[in-house]
Amino acid sequence: MNKPTLYTCLSPSLLHLYDVRECVVVVIDVLRATSTIATALFNGAKSIIPVDTVEKCIKLGKDMECITAGERDGKVAEGLQYGNSSFEYPRSFIEGKILILTTTNGTKLLHMALNKGATEIITGSFLNQSAVSDHLLQTKRNVILACAGWKDKVNMEDTLFAGAVISKIKNHFTVNCDASQIAGCLYDNAKGNLYEFLKVNDASHYHRLINFGLEQDIRHCLTEDLANVLPYYVDERLVI
Amino acid sequence: MNKPTLYTCLSPSLLHLYDVRECVVVVIDVLRATSTIATALFNGAKSIIPVDTVEKCIKLGKDMECITAGERDGKVAEGLQYGNSSFEYPRSFIEGKILILTTTNGTKLLHMALNKGATEIITGSFLNQSAVSDHLLQTKRNVILACAGWKDKVNMEDTLFAGAVISKIKNHFTVNCDASQIAGCLYDNAKGNLYEFLKVNDASHYHRLINFGLEQDIRHCLTEDLANVLPYYVDERLVI
Repeated sequence: MNKPTLYTCLSPSLLHLYDVRECVVVVIDVLRATSTIATALFNGAKSIIPVDTVEKCIKLGKDMECITAGERDGKVAEGLQYGNSSFEYPRSFIEGKILILTTTNGTKLLHMALNKGATEIITGSFLNQSAVSDHLLQTKRNVILACAGWKDKVNMEDTLFAGAVISKIKNHFTVNCDASQIAGCLYDNAKGNLYEFLKVNDASHYHRLINFGLEQDIRHCLTEDLANVLPYYVDERLVI
Repeated sequence: MNKPTLYTCLSPSLLHLYDVRECVVVVIDVLRATSTIATALFNGAKSIIPVDTVEKCIKLGKDMECITAGERDGKVAEGLQYGNSSFEYPRSFIEGKILILTTTNGTKLLHMALNKGATEIITGSFLNQSAVSDHLLQTKRNVILACAGWKDKVNMEDTLFAGAVISKIKNHFTVNCDASQIAGCLYDNAKGNLYEFLKVNDASHYHRLINFGLEQDIRHCLTEDLANVLPYYVDERLVI
């Protein structure tokens, strides 16, 4: 039997090169949208509604009387209540609630994939790495690892997470994709100490968040399987 | 004094993210356009006129009574005389002649950069790696390493060449660019045996050319400084 295919899309600006319709699309925004999504759902959030603009987030929050959250350029967006840090969503706060979320890169990419006809979208981060990898191994569908990057530029942490997944599952897929090979190679260099790797290699988002005093956020988002759930998109929301 | 900036653009589809106007743009298409360009000029070609379509190549060849060359999908394009292999352009054949060239990725990228207002374009390959690096160090302008990739997908060999340049010059530039860091890391893993690295990591273009029986072409294109000239674009042609 032919193995399913695996591709890595390193930037939303490259998504048009891939046919997302017959694949599982893994949306990856390690710092920090998909880490926050995993955490909030792990901690009992009822669902997360990703929206692509701050305006939609505010309006939907009013209409549904739900928590609104999101950031632009790494900071809480004006008009929203909460930010994009896992630490804002402990079980004591988020359990049973619906969160409406918009972010600079991750939620935008999710909507791009939807608009291109994606039928199965899940979200991935180091926090739920095993859940994602296990699902991809079990489902045996073609896979696109879609990195959110930063404003369409390729970034290191999303590429590293793609590499982590590839490293775990590649033998079960046909990987005719240089971007995947590059990501896998990068991860092989970084594994064991992802934080130091980002620091030593001057990852741009590392510096951006450090400048906001968010070292603990970065460390949290690089920890494997702390919130090991499988968020999937259905009926306009992410659930587990 | 502030150091000039260095960015790596891993695909032509990402070029819109970079301001090419005030930079040296290094067009990179290791397998094989920019390797062939370096070789033909090193071997005494008077100039190379890169064009973006086969039709233009044929027409210009007739109008100027010049050699036409180029490929689509790795093979000599219909209607053109020669292909995209360095071995087709020994000094005995090419010296003093003008070559009109069109390729799947490299010459297209060059025209994209021109259309976006690039004012200084040079071409880079392992064959002229030192000439490129030395020029970038001397000119002290901002730099964009622009990888041609394969039909807009990121590829390994162009990323590796970007990494080779970065590895040599990064201390003299401000590198706030994850794509550059990734390329540098990849090259650090590959240096010393680029051919094996492409083979072991299943580089897609390696397989494509191997299937055409072009192992020697690949080996040639991965050899440093065999044709160590600096092709630059002026008056619609590449010269040294």
